[in-house]
Amino acid sequence: MHKPLAISMGEPAGVGPDIALQLYAHRAELNLAPFCLFGNTDFLMARAARLGLEIAFAPVGPEGAMDVFADALPVAPIEGDVPDHPGQTTPLSGHAVIAAIEDAVASTLSGACRGLVTAPIHKGALYQAGFKHPGHTEFLAALCAGGGTPRLPVMMLAHGGLRAVPVTIHVPIRDVPGLLSKQLIVDTVRVVAHDLRQRFGIAHPQIAVAGLNPHAGEGGSIGREDLEIVGPAVAQLQFEGIAVTGPLPADTLFYPAHWTQYDAVVAMYHDQALIPIKTVAFEDAVNVTLGLPIVRTSPDHGTAFDLAGTGQASPKSFLAAIAMADAMTADQ
Amino acid sequence: MHKPLAISMGEPAGVGPDIALQLYAHRAELNLAPFCLFGNTDFLMARAARLGLEIAFAPVGPEGAMDVFADALPVAPIEGDVPDHPGQTTPLSGHAVIAAIEDAVASTLSGACRGLVTAPIHKGALYQAGFKHPGHTEFLAALCAGGGTPRLPVMMLAHGGLRAVPVTIHVPIRDVPGLLSKQLIVDTVRVVAHDLRQRFGIAHPQIAVAGLNPHAGEGGSIGREDLEIVGPAVAQLQFEGIAVTGPLPADTLFYPAHWTQYDAVVAMYHDQALIPIKTVAFEDAVNVTLGLPIVRTSPDHGTAFDLAGTGQASPKSFLAAIAMADAMTADQ
Repeated sequence: MHKPLAISMGEPAGVGPDIALQLYAHRAELNLAPFCLFGNTDFLMARAARLGLEIAFAPVGPEGAMDVFADALPVAPIEGDVPDHPGQTTPLSGHAVIAAIEDAVASTLSGACRGLVTAPIHKGALYQAGFKHPGHTEFLAALCAGGGTPRLPVMMLAHGGLRAVPVTIHVPIRDVPGLLSKQLIVDTVRVVAHDLRQRFGIAHPQIAVAGLNPHAGEGGSIGREDLEIVGPAVAQLQFEGIAVTGPLPADTLFYPAHWTQYDAVVAMYHDQALIPIKTVAFEDAVNVTLGLPIVRTSPDHGTAFDLAGTGQASPKSFLAAIAMADAMTADQ
Repeated sequence: MHKPLAISMGEPAGVGPDIALQLYAHRAELNLAPFCLFGNTDFLMARAARLGLEIAFAPVGPEGAMDVFADALPVAPIEGDVPDHPGQTTPLSGHAVIAAIEDAVASTLSGACRGLVTAPIHKGALYQAGFKHPGHTEFLAALCAGGGTPRLPVMMLAHGGLRAVPVTIHVPIRDVPGLLSKQLIVDTVRVVAHDLRQRFGIAHPQIAVAGLNPHAGEGGSIGREDLEIVGPAVAQLQFEGIAVTGPLPADTLFYPAHWTQYDAVVAMYHDQALIPIKTVAFEDAVNVTLGLPIVRTSPDHGTAFDLAGTGQASPKSFLAAIAMADAMTADQ
């Protein structure tokens, strides 16, 4: 292991910087994988002081990170005026948040960092700074495409061997049936199967696909989509040699003793995937983006403005995100 | 405690009779609440023999049940030709299945039995016998209404203090947004609040209502229903003095440490309610019907034709259903 992970600082008004700093302060007990924090040094120093953390900062970038990590927090400095106002977003900091992500992605794509962990952003604050992407993940996909057509990024929530992937994400339930297509399901499961092999080292991944409707449609008596869209997608994937089963009734799929029979469950919509993983692992789940040319993980929580600057936010998910990015890139 | 529970035998081709007989065979170790089994005596004797259970049968009906339960299984005999063919439905048995439910409901309504536990039915087999109801629960509601307009039956899945109620049930996801109305949510939560007080002895029930859309619609940016339907229903219920909170994002609601802060979570559709309860308690959850004039519980599984006659079906949920009906009627 010769390279650091990259961490983007995320929204300065949120808990992301707090947790990154707190974890660094406990790097020895936690046996934390070395990382370089992409962010505004003055802001990070102010937030550390606010939290009462005695941390030395070293603006050495990824290249110097491994040498200093034991003694000082390696920072890849981002310019800009970033005020330390927990809970209060400001248009001022938007450019720095975006630049931190851009630089962290570039350093990971170049190989200077071996994987990326992103702290949560607040889209509202970024739109004021000209951000034009529907979300964090889509922005990362665009950066990784370098101006070309982005590949399909796929969101996975993971906790140990329990992994859930929603095919549609931040869309109203009303729109889900119309957005589902055989092609979208096929594309998603292909990415999942590929990345389970490449990123998770699972030679022969077993994937379950949940049905859209109650009881997976009960043979067509509760909706036609499971017969006409999900089923044909599964058949196509099986034809391609992917070990996939479905559509299966979603309500009986996520009992952990069943769930662990599969390396991942692909669900049709946001809550169908996120309810079970958060029911089992509320503070420990990790968000992993599949389908990118880089490894990217993030904690499974938002900016939690009310906890920013207090030191009270749970670091569990962020720590799990770092550990997962570390495990996924242990050969680099 | 002077009255038995009623158990309807359910589909003879399924595992319901098996489990009822197995539980009776272990009545002493399980300290099982006394019950009267409504079913065809010849069939039940044949199934018990198939399972190798040495059980004495007493066709004494509910009135004689308490006296004989320790020594013989009290049966309320249902006439008809019911073959012992595990896994194979036949139109012959449909009338007996329906009559068992009718008689069990009548005995519970009359007060001869203190509560009803129903074994699973197979709707397909019953439709051949002239059954015209969309499901088991609607049939019970109609029987309880005695020819009048049935009250709204409400399905609750429960496991200890974790309780989930879907507002819409066996309908396609595509139809859910159109079926949701302020009135339906208000009516459902009223029944839940009433029955938590009356049936569960919770003096001041706290109820959470899940949002329909991801993140409960994020203030309208992911669908309008949470603003326009769910929110106003919650406001109306609060105005009526019911302690209800929502719409809350469904993905973070069911972590058991959160869930137990509420006496019940009311969800907008089948999988939103059933995924979390079955993720936590796959074999132990109980289906409770609220809104009826009688207590009715049932195991949270189906007929499991492949396991019928084998003795391999898990009795956990059926046992939990009996225990819950017992607890809910302990004063009778």
